[in-house]
Amino acid sequence: MSHINPHIQALPEANLDEKVLQEGIVRGDRKALSQAITLVESKLPQHQERRSRLLDWAVSQGKTGYRLGITGVPGAGKSSLIETLGLLLVGQGHRVAVLAIDPSSRLRKGSILGDKTRMEKLSRHPQAFIRPSASGGHLGGVAAATREALVLCEAAGYDHILVETVGVGQSEIEVKDLVDFFLLVLVPLGGDELQGMKRGIVEMANLIVINKADGDHLQQAKAARLEYARALSLFPGDGAGWKPRAITASALLGSGVDEILEAMQAYRVQAESNGAWHENRREQAVRWMLQYVEQGLLSWFKGQPRYTDMLTVLKELVAKGQRDPFGAARELLGLLPAQS
Amino acid sequence: MSHINPHIQALPEANLDEKVLQEGIVRGDRKALSQAITLVESKLPQHQERRSRLLDWAVSQGKTGYRLGITGVPGAGKSSLIETLGLLLVGQGHRVAVLAIDPSSRLRKGSILGDKTRMEKLSRHPQAFIRPSASGGHLGGVAAATREALVLCEAAGYDHILVETVGVGQSEIEVKDLVDFFLLVLVPLGGDELQGMKRGIVEMANLIVINKADGDHLQQAKAARLEYARALSLFPGDGAGWKPRAITASALLGSGVDEILEAMQAYRVQAESNGAWHENRREQAVRWMLQYVEQGLLSWFKGQPRYTDMLTVLKELVAKGQRDPFGAARELLGLLPAQS
Repeated sequence: MSHINPHIQALPEANLDEKVLQEGIVRGDRKALSQAITLVESKLPQHQERRSRLLDWAVSQGKTGYRLGITGVPGAGKSSLIETLGLLLVGQGHRVAVLAIDPSSRLRKGSILGDKTRMEKLSRHPQAFIRPSASGGHLGGVAAATREALVLCEAAGYDHILVETVGVGQSEIEVKDLVDFFLLVLVPLGGDELQGMKRGIVEMANLIVINKADGDHLQQAKAARLEYARALSLFPGDGAGWKPRAITASALLGSGVDEILEAMQAYRVQAESNGAWHENRREQAVRWMLQYVEQGLLSWFKGQPRYTDMLTVLKELVAKGQRDPFGAARELLGLLPAQS
Repeated sequence: MSHINPHIQALPEANLDEKVLQEGIVRGDRKALSQAITLVESKLPQHQERRSRLLDWAVSQGKTGYRLGITGVPGAGKSSLIETLGLLLVGQGHRVAVLAIDPSSRLRKGSILGDKTRMEKLSRHPQAFIRPSASGGHLGGVAAATREALVLCEAAGYDHILVETVGVGQSEIEVKDLVDFFLLVLVPLGGDELQGMKRGIVEMANLIVINKADGDHLQQAKAARLEYARALSLFPGDGAGWKPRAITASALLGSGVDEILEAMQAYRVQAESNGAWHENRREQAVRWMLQYVEQGLLSWFKGQPRYTDMLTVLKELVAKGQRDPFGAARELLGLLPAQS
């Protein structure tokens, strides 16, 4: 249950003063932003008040960007697509933050997304900020830290926040809760191969991008696009009355990225005019609140006087097979005050 | 934060008497098992004691099966593979339970896995039991209900428990925690397409199955298998000293399923002989305990006297944009007793 972010241990406490961090963020200092994210990701009790103050400050700035979720099966080429999209946006004068959720980080020392070669050009651009997000513990799920990082990036003046997830599953449902526009990147496999995905994840997408539409895969990609376009046409519009689209793209050929921006723009115009844009954000805010409560609750419980001692003993008994996990859990929950 | 399982509402309270359920389970009544799972999935406070007693009873039966996790990208053909594998096992006299985690169920009324046509033959077999698991709320994650369903299936005498997840991401990490052997099903895309996946998820797999190795995809599947076999050979063995394998399979041709059973058997022999099998289960038990604690903690908090009223008010303020979600969450957390 205890997950201590390795970044935090590398930072001297003096660098975590939230006033200094705020000034740095306002100044456009990416290192300060990075340290601020590390601070809000920290689960250490001594950081809790500073975390709260920093987050309150960020929210009070009242700045928000276009929040874009990008997901898709591993190997679909999300990173190249994000880099191309990001470079296009910074070229237009925008400031782009990329937050990458890496659900694999629990099991590994390193991180899939720590790969230095990913988004190399974009990461060197002064108007871009790239940050892999720790996936954290169970509580709050993969998106907990990302939610707060997003708010900090917005306070820092980034007007496009790209949230990338690896894989297709629970994390996408959580990312959908963070963003305004949800982009699903698929590989060019047509036919029955993708049917299994259609009904669940595809329904969440505002735009489907069949990527790698080049070379040997071009025909397959076109066929897959047609198939998805047909399937999407059967869906009812969402709250914004938006009909999800399907396009093809190729990072190699540089195609498709303009269309992504066009679709994002068209969606925003439509959703703002009928109120769906703000309605979606309001609903998200409620879910953010609930997730934040869950996080805080667990922190509180860990601070109960006998928690650590009892946990140590029970863990050992369970590990030896001398207690069953459910009974042991109930004993630990016995620390909770009785309810009146 | 409140997720009420729709199944539970359809069940008369009289059917949820845990003694009656236990007798039914022991008798081999699949309906009783199904209702018992519904009961342990229930988050209603009035079911809590019965849930605990039922779970304690199940654990006290001391029966365990071979726990197999099956995951892979959507459309990889997991269901056909599971059905073929399941039919082979029941043909050998085994009793097979399939628990399918459906992370999409939160967003949709129905369920991907509710599709009646999936595993039709297996679901009709008297020695098989198939159950889609609700994904529940954030707390405890997608696997919370599945963990308890697994224990009930084992108490019911199922000796092979197949846990299926849709997608690749957080849910796989949770499923890895539930099982003895972890099988990754991939589509026959070779080359760079799958590189992104190798370092994270692939490391968790005990066996990689390149599925759909038939027709047009046969050559691609063989090439992908070779590539994975090469990559896997570079990994160090796990705690059991097991070297993960890569094979091809085709539900269409019926190929590859024998090899899956062979690998499972070989793994068990090896892991039991060097203690890794039980070591893994003991570590899992500790994590199960922690997850169960998280679940119980949230239930307790929801039972705090002013929780519901306060939540209603704060939700409304946040929804109207009159409170920020973080501040509102902290106000709700103010209900917690002060720590001495």
